[in-house]
Amino acid sequence: MDAAELPSVFSKKGFYGAMMEWAMKDEHFKTQLFRFVDVLPALASSSEVARHLQEYLGTEEAHLSPALRMGLKAAGGASWIVGAGVKSQVTAMAGTFLLGDQPKEILRTLRQLHDQGLAFTVDILGEAVVSEAEAEHYVRRYLDLMDAIGPEIAQWPHSCKSNESSAGPVPPLNLSIKLSALYSQVHPADPDTAVEQICGRLRPILRQAAKLGAFINFDMESYAHKNLTLRVFQTIFAEPEFARHPACGLAMQAYLKDCETDLRGLISWARERSRRVTVRLVKGAYWDYETILSQQRHWPVPVFARKPESDANFEKLSLLLLENTTAVDAAFGTHNVRSIAYVLAQADRLGLDRRAFEFQMLYGMAEPVKAAVLQLKCRVRDYCPVGELLPGIAYFVRRLLENTSNEGFLANKFSKGVSRDELLQDPRRLVVAAQPEPPRSASGAETRPFRNEPCTDFTLGLERDRLRAALVELRRHLGRRHPLVINHKPVQTRDWSPSLNPANQNEIVGYAAQGTTVEAEAALAAARAAQPKWARTKAGDRAALLERLADLMRRDKAALSALAVLEAGKNWGEADADVAEAIDFCDFYASIMRDLSRSRRTQWVPGESNLQHWWPRGLGVVIAPWNFPLAILTGMASAAVVAGNAIILKPSDQTPVIGARLMDLFMEAGVPPGVVNLLTGPGRQIAAHLVAHPQIDFIAFTGSMEVGLKIWETAGRTLAGQANLKKVICEMGGKNCLIVDSDADLDEAVTGCVASAFGYQGQKCSALSRLIVLEDQYDKFIERLIAAAGSLRIGPAEVPGTIIGPVINREAQQRIQAIIQAGQQEARLAWQGIVPNDPAACYVAPTIFTGVPASSRLFREEIFGPVLAVTKARDFDEALALANSSDFALTGGCYSRSPVNIDRVKNELACGNLYINRSITGAVVERQPFGGFKMSGGGTKAGGVEYLQNFMLPRVITENCLRRGFAPTDE
Amino acid sequence: MDAAELPSVFSKKGFYGAMMEWAMKDEHFKTQLFRFVDVLPALASSSEVARHLQEYLGTEEAHLSPALRMGLKAAGGASWIVGAGVKSQVTAMAGTFLLGDQPKEILRTLRQLHDQGLAFTVDILGEAVVSEAEAEHYVRRYLDLMDAIGPEIAQWPHSCKSNESSAGPVPPLNLSIKLSALYSQVHPADPDTAVEQICGRLRPILRQAAKLGAFINFDMESYAHKNLTLRVFQTIFAEPEFARHPACGLAMQAYLKDCETDLRGLISWARERSRRVTVRLVKGAYWDYETILSQQRHWPVPVFARKPESDANFEKLSLLLLENTTAVDAAFGTHNVRSIAYVLAQADRLGLDRRAFEFQMLYGMAEPVKAAVLQLKCRVRDYCPVGELLPGIAYFVRRLLENTSNEGFLANKFSKGVSRDELLQDPRRLVVAAQPEPPRSASGAETRPFRNEPCTDFTLGLERDRLRAALVELRRHLGRRHPLVINHKPVQTRDWSPSLNPANQNEIVGYAAQGTTVEAEAALAAARAAQPKWARTKAGDRAALLERLADLMRRDKAALSALAVLEAGKNWGEADADVAEAIDFCDFYASIMRDLSRSRRTQWVPGESNLQHWWPRGLGVVIAPWNFPLAILTGMASAAVVAGNAIILKPSDQTPVIGARLMDLFMEAGVPPGVVNLLTGPGRQIAAHLVAHPQIDFIAFTGSMEVGLKIWETAGRTLAGQANLKKVICEMGGKNCLIVDSDADLDEAVTGCVASAFGYQGQKCSALSRLIVLEDQYDKFIERLIAAAGSLRIGPAEVPGTIIGPVINREAQQRIQAIIQAGQQEARLAWQGIVPNDPAACYVAPTIFTGVPASSRLFREEIFGPVLAVTKARDFDEALALANSSDFALTGGCYSRSPVNIDRVKNELACGNLYINRSITGAVVERQPFGGFKMSGGGTKAGGVEYLQNFMLPRVITENCLRRGFAPTDE
Repeated sequence: MDAAELPSVFSKKGFYGAMMEWAMKDEHFKTQLFRFVDVLPALASSSEVARHLQEYLGTEEAHLSPALRMGLKAAGGASWIVGAGVKSQVTAMAGTFLLGDQPKEILRTLRQLHDQGLAFTVDILGEAVVSEAEAEHYVRRYLDLMDAIGPEIAQWPHSCKSNESSAGPVPPLNLSIKLSALYSQVHPADPDTAVEQICGRLRPILRQAAKLGAFINFDMESYAHKNLTLRVFQTIFAEPEFARHPACGLAMQAYLKDCETDLRGLISWARERSRRVTVRLVKGAYWDYETILSQQRHWPVPVFARKPESDANFEKLSLLLLENTTAVDAAFGTHNVRSIAYVLAQADRLGLDRRAFEFQMLYGMAEPVKAAVLQLKCRVRDYCPVGELLPGIAYFVRRLLENTSNEGFLANKFSKGVSRDELLQDPRRLVVAAQPEPPRSASGAETRPFRNEPCTDFTLGLERDRLRAALVELRRHLGRRHPLVINHKPVQTRDWSPSLNPANQNEIVGYAAQGTTVEAEAALAAARAAQPKWARTKAGDRAALLERLADLMRRDKAALSALAVLEAGKNWGEADADVAEAIDFCDFYASIMRDLSRSRRTQWVPGESNLQHWWPRGLGVVIAPWNFPLAILTGMASAAVVAGNAIILKPSDQTPVIGARLMDLFMEAGVPPGVVNLLTGPGRQIAAHLVAHPQIDFIAFTGSMEVGLKIWETAGRTLAGQANLKKVICEMGGKNCLIVDSDADLDEAVTGCVASAFGYQGQKCSALSRLIVLEDQYDKFIERLIAAAGSLRIGPAEVPGTIIGPVINREAQQRIQAIIQAGQQEARLAWQGIVPNDPAACYVAPTIFTGVPASSRLFREEIFGPVLAVTKARDFDEALALANSSDFALTGGCYSRSPVNIDRVKNELACGNLYINRSITGAVVERQPFGGFKMSGGGTKAGGVEYLQNFMLPRVITENCLRRGFAPTDE
Repeated sequence: MDAAELPSVFSKKGFYGAMMEWAMKDEHFKTQLFRFVDVLPALASSSEVARHLQEYLGTEEAHLSPALRMGLKAAGGASWIVGAGVKSQVTAMAGTFLLGDQPKEILRTLRQLHDQGLAFTVDILGEAVVSEAEAEHYVRRYLDLMDAIGPEIAQWPHSCKSNESSAGPVPPLNLSIKLSALYSQVHPADPDTAVEQICGRLRPILRQAAKLGAFINFDMESYAHKNLTLRVFQTIFAEPEFARHPACGLAMQAYLKDCETDLRGLISWARERSRRVTVRLVKGAYWDYETILSQQRHWPVPVFARKPESDANFEKLSLLLLENTTAVDAAFGTHNVRSIAYVLAQADRLGLDRRAFEFQMLYGMAEPVKAAVLQLKCRVRDYCPVGELLPGIAYFVRRLLENTSNEGFLANKFSKGVSRDELLQDPRRLVVAAQPEPPRSASGAETRPFRNEPCTDFTLGLERDRLRAALVELRRHLGRRHPLVINHKPVQTRDWSPSLNPANQNEIVGYAAQGTTVEAEAALAAARAAQPKWARTKAGDRAALLERLADLMRRDKAALSALAVLEAGKNWGEADADVAEAIDFCDFYASIMRDLSRSRRTQWVPGESNLQHWWPRGLGVVIAPWNFPLAILTGMASAAVVAGNAIILKPSDQTPVIGARLMDLFMEAGVPPGVVNLLTGPGRQIAAHLVAHPQIDFIAFTGSMEVGLKIWETAGRTLAGQANLKKVICEMGGKNCLIVDSDADLDEAVTGCVASAFGYQGQKCSALSRLIVLEDQYDKFIERLIAAAGSLRIGPAEVPGTIIGPVINREAQQRIQAIIQAGQQEARLAWQGIVPNDPAACYVAPTIFTGVPASSRLFREEIFGPVLAVTKARDFDEALALANSSDFALTGGCYSRSPVNIDRVKNELACGNLYINRSITGAVVERQPFGGFKMSGGGTKAGGVEYLQNFMLPRVITENCLRRGFAPTDE
């Protein structure tokens, strides 16, 4: 192998060689280069290519090292910094790894491999499947490909050595399939439907494969799909029709901590059914992604933290496979010579024929390794992705990353000249020798007591069972009366208002007491009596109350989610996120309060101590909406309370039962009587009464602009006997906008837009309402968008896989339907979903309008429902102008891969929360302090470090420490 | 000396010994102990003593080390923790250093010294002289003492060896005088008056001394009085009457950096006039005080930073004195054996008789040293303070500090057992060997770019000349017209309003243009056009504008002060402080803006960048009052502007010329046109128009409650077309309260209350208005308070020594006079000052009401004039209740030496700025962020780190950095 020529990808010659060498030397350049390569196939013209090249690599801001800049010039940078040339260079680079799209080219390449003694498996590359139409299309492509190449391959004159196993010939036509491409609506909470749908799409492929004598392999993708893939495999190949044919296999990822368990399970399954399965053991290609995603979600990281651990596990599982060749066929997917040597040594030890198993390597990579392994009389199969640069870009970039990684075997061997001894070291020794994980980067190193509550992983059956049980349990107690709570005492009222399930208006979730101004006054008196003592309670003790409340919510998580499902019509994921956010608010504000309770020295002055600290404001009323019935109510209430205030909770009339539940939990957590009081009832009377009341010091409000402005105005008036200017913490509506740039990654833009616009039926202040699409990609984007929206599952929120449920109540339903009706005068109704025909439920068909004029009501007024207005923009200037042409400024977003346009959005788009290249909803406490300005609110940020200050007043204490000319040094 | 017994103060036996030993071991205990000793003489009863003992030393909070706590117990702590016993113990301790008050006791002690061969000088201890009555009383005490002891001393049979100089006998009666006790109104800006007054009080004393053949020495006190003392000395002893008699001398402090210059000057003076002067060279006793005070003020520290430097200077100046015995007599005030040995060695070298000079040491200290020096045939004089524990407490505590200091020679020699070699080391060697000064304590170590502008030191003649010249120059340009400024263009108006000098209503400082709503609209249009570009200007550039503005104000400091003197009626110090504060606002907000402009990572998340930053709000109007005509206007304007907003300046109708001046400086500093616009004119029309305007995003207001509430209400209404909810930054009035506890240090309380109540004629939002005095010290306190108030100098603000000037205008004068008139129905008019009879000036006689009921208007309503309402409180509970019985909560204060009461005030007194044991006015930027709540304001803090956030909106940018499963580590 050492004598052979360098693999082409590690040659330092030419454009590719120079790029890769620099990328390995400079992390920033590598990032910029790969990002440029990533966007490249999406660029329509040479001038666009040149612009992006300039933005990524040509500017001062690129922070290229001077040496690198010099190098670029020396390498004749000037000549290749020209659009068209670059695109063809990169396409040529990609050709190293991709087989193209045309059957003819594909067959030509496969035949070459065949003639070299290399077997192959063919993988069809594609963009992400975001709709059912795309999934169907993918199935079609497989069938077409098999038809196009199968018959010819069957007629090739000689057989390939690599297809001659010790047990006999194996099928020359071998296909790799990604199950994620077969169904666009995989839902963690509903694996059953996913299995059913995927199996349905697989059957024609398997039939065809059986007919052609082809081999079908299931690729393994992200961890989120792992169990699903295993289940589909074991389901479909247990079906009588496929119990013997086609030949089949499955990839397994050694970097997963639970790979061994899965592998042992699969071997047992194969053995029991006598169904031979080829297991392709790989290390795994999504390490960064899995690590980042699970860290973002605070889920356990499923992959081993260090590369040698994965290598060691690969060896361990290799042995397991070799020991079970009676049940399964082994395929080892690796370029690592140490891993290969280990397999061979163990096979020899076990007395296995070298043709009893095979090696798999990637097309275009590791040529000397393949040659060496073939020389050893082993079987080698090339993994051959077919497709053009655009659909293949993800695969291509992954290869570039692999070839520039510090940990990749190939780069170490062929580019970095790492010694043979090092390359062949036992990975287990490296694991033992490894240092503990290095601390995170500076900004991440702070040990902070606060940590976000993870959302529930509904891919776990246990979690699904728990919520299902909670729904059952809740149903047994529906329809109870929930009294007011004043000074911890339940207060009955004359009137009671029913709270209805949005998915079934005949189901009464509970009855809410209807307070009047009499009870409002009583609640105020209770709060007033309780507040001074609470204000003097140590901040640490007040924080501890919130932490207990968080613990209780954690304990009751499923029950609270169930309540949000039935009372607010939230689907499982949204309901769970609502509870998690409520928990976060408690824990976060507790931690912030602990910080704030430490007086801050304003300035160091000898002989004088100057400390600033915070005082509670006094009495407040908390007026919450129904759309985050637990989270927003809890957030405002917990902030007010931990700051030392006493409050009156006024939950929404739509979700009073959740409000009552929060009151119970506050009491259980040990809040002193009177500090929190519950006052359900007609907002127009009791909330208005309290807002105007001279004894109210602050109002925390989240809700509509109309009510918010009224509160703002009322609070401006200072009445006789009023102690303080009234503070209003005011979060109102939004008319949020997303720009889809002409170079956006459409896979991501489509899913992000659909989730932002239709999540919780658009009933979020942060929901996407105005979508501005640059004209270059407009048609393709809209087509995919509508297809994706049309694939969303609609139904009662309690059904686990439901994405779109009913809107909150009949009134909202009618109001939104009227808006849709009227909207057709203003714009083109491009798409409308189909909702179940259930008169007891408050469904609104999700709707997309296109060609929406900036002057229209559809474009300007908040709808708070599943209605998306799309407008085409000529250029980015117009897109920004349109985006900013709104009375609101809450959330906003942009999908773009142009650094310059991203910067412009960051600098110019008026909104409180801006999201780049992701959905614009789902702000997380601490991570995305939430709130906007203009008519969206007063500029406060819920879940931010400054939020608590709204509920307090700063106070500075200056103490002269100098007595008789002497001041202690410690004051 | 080593063979002699330990000096009594270093004995480790008994109560005193134990206390001092512990104090040396534990800094915290030392602080607590000395603070307890400090308050002790002021305590009226044993139970009060016991309470304070418990508060200082008996609680867990005292943080005594466990060993110390054990030690306290072991030493029979239980027995002495009883009030009366402790007081007598401490009085006995003090008796070691003080001679008592009665002529008989004094004579007995002096005779003992005389018989031991020790000469003496007598110093009369006293409380601080806070009024002219007290100064007169002090003079009387000197005269009385001389009469009481002089004749008897003259008749003592033998002379004392120490009074036998080589040049003949020196007067046995030797008195030391502190000039600060002779005049209560020393004003830095007016040394002439002080010299005149002090000389007037000195003459009878000198006459009596001449008659009795006594020697008069001037003690040297704080650095602030140093030049004055030198000048008085050289003035009065140049008067023919005193040109030869009495014998006289002066103390000089070697720790002062300019001591050598002063000493050489004095020697020349003595030589020229052939007036023999005894120079008592000391090291100096106020090192901590001088260091702390100059650091607080950012003035150059006048003393050497390190002890060996002072020791070395002492030796250097000792030699200078010995070389000049032909002109001056030398007295060396030191206990340091090395210093003494140096003097003796140099005297020997110069061939001087050892009786040609004397040593001076303190009574009760360093007995073995005195004995040894006497044995060497030298002359020794004891410095003998006479007085009881209460007036002597400052002196006593200073001795305790000296005896427990780490640097004192005596403690090192007699307590710490430092070796002879070390004790006798050449201080110059220590200076060279010394490390650079250690960095300040952790909290002070931060290097912050912001540094407060020092107030001008008017003790410097140069500074006085500069302001005097500026006043002259200003007078040459009075009466000009000051147009509006819109978009940098001067705008003339039809009406012009004169601005009058409060001290002379016939003098027109200038004419202010009177804008109308037409110009208001024009200004708004200019601001609107300019703001977007300004918002996009880099924050660093906006900050640089403010820094240039600060530099221009520094350049024009005297001219701006002169304008404040003439237009606002501020005295020199107040005017200078106003300008310094304006400079501080610019520099501070610039530095804060630089900080805020760096986006803050909200949370570390892999694969996602989350950054919070701040956006300007838009357009604002700045409505400022006249009482800090430059500082408050500049503060609000600079904050608004540096944050990226465009504004309209609306200065007060009373001080439009200063407003116009600020506008000029903004333009000179380079603010872009339209970003700052000047709109003078009738507030009721133009300000109201702007406040209600839908294009105004924020209002920064400082002024009266009435106007403030009106603005708050107007801003609450959101008009059609309005972009944002209006933000009001609102600072209103106060009715500020100070509690004088029964154990307060009255010296400090009297001066602090007078300054707080009558500074700038009470025309500060922070001014003291309600004084609550505990009944135990009530009578004594009120007597001293009225005497002190009565000593304040009243006149035109431009006269350098003026403390009380006219109020702002005729209307205010009449309004306040009416309040005083009406107040006499509610309370007792206890005192009223006498103002110049000048009908052209707007004087209001400063007034003190006593017995003011909590329900009265005098107690409840803001007066904004020199009127103080005093109320007596039975106990501290009542005092706190009275203090909190107010609609306002701006500043507050308490003079107390009870740790428990201080804590209660800190926890319970409702105010934005609380001051303990100091005056309640004069908040300094950054050090005391200023602002209150209740009807005093919205809880914003001008000059605090959070202030700028009021002018901005938070914005969070979330960027998905994960592309193709890869995220760079640096994002």
